[in-house]
Amino acid sequence: MEVGVGIHIIADFYGVDSELIATTERMYPIIEGAVEYGRLTKISSDYYQFRPKGASGIVLLAESHLSFHTWPEYGLVTLDIYTCGDPKTADDAFAYLVDKLRPTSISTRKIVRGDMIEEAGENQIEEAALH
Amino acid sequence: MEVGVGIHIIADFYGVDSELIATTERMYPIIEGAVEYGRLTKISSDYYQFRPKGASGIVLLAESHLSFHTWPEYGLVTLDIYTCGDPKTADDAFAYLVDKLRPTSISTRKIVRGDMIEEAGENQIEEAALH
Repeated sequence: MEVGVGIHIIADFYGVDSELIATTERMYPIIEGAVEYGRLTKISSDYYQFRPKGASGIVLLAESHLSFHTWPEYGLVTLDIYTCGDPKTADDAFAYLVDKLRPTSISTRKIVRGDMIEEAGENQIEEAALH
Repeated sequence: MEVGVGIHIIADFYGVDSELIATTERMYPIIEGAVEYGRLTKISSDYYQFRPKGASGIVLLAESHLSFHTWPEYGLVTLDIYTCGDPKTADDAFAYLVDKLRPTSISTRKIVRGDMIEEAGENQIEEAALH
């Protein structure tokens, strides 16, 4: 993987059960569970219930952030998992979300953030504060 | 532009003044200003100060979210502006951030989220709740 400050998984989940993603009440344990399963460090989280249905939420992490937005009318959840530190944490959180949301198809991109930083060897990055 | 539920601008700003991006105190008005300039609808926002320096913040929007993470040691700010509705709002917020942060170089991607939703004409999308 290229050097950078973090890994960002950008994923759109299709074919997700509409009832499951209609409310923050049902999304909350899934999202918080992903943070825990990925051994990520939560600073804060906030959720918002759309009317009549649909939910958004964002978790500010010491390692960056995890966010979701749902469109129950399309069975769609858009997810962002952006972490610095061990890249496996993002992969684990992602795997947890796939397992809990059970999409029928996924569109995903994984990108390296800050990959153009100069004179930044791996040791320097490891020593930088988590974001 | 392809049909989808929203536009996501993923940008890494390099060569930004380290002092400017070292604290939430200085980043707060820039981020909140971008939300206002883009005519976006803030639901909530949260900021975190890293020690000794570095800041993260996230704004939950009715239209999705805007987030940033700074690495003053690299002059780096990573930004995400994800909006549904009028795509110009994301472009305007982005332009505001370029103007205020004055990076020497930018790496940017613009992607359509949820572009594989089926049988979703533009009218249907416009009628869907904002996220």
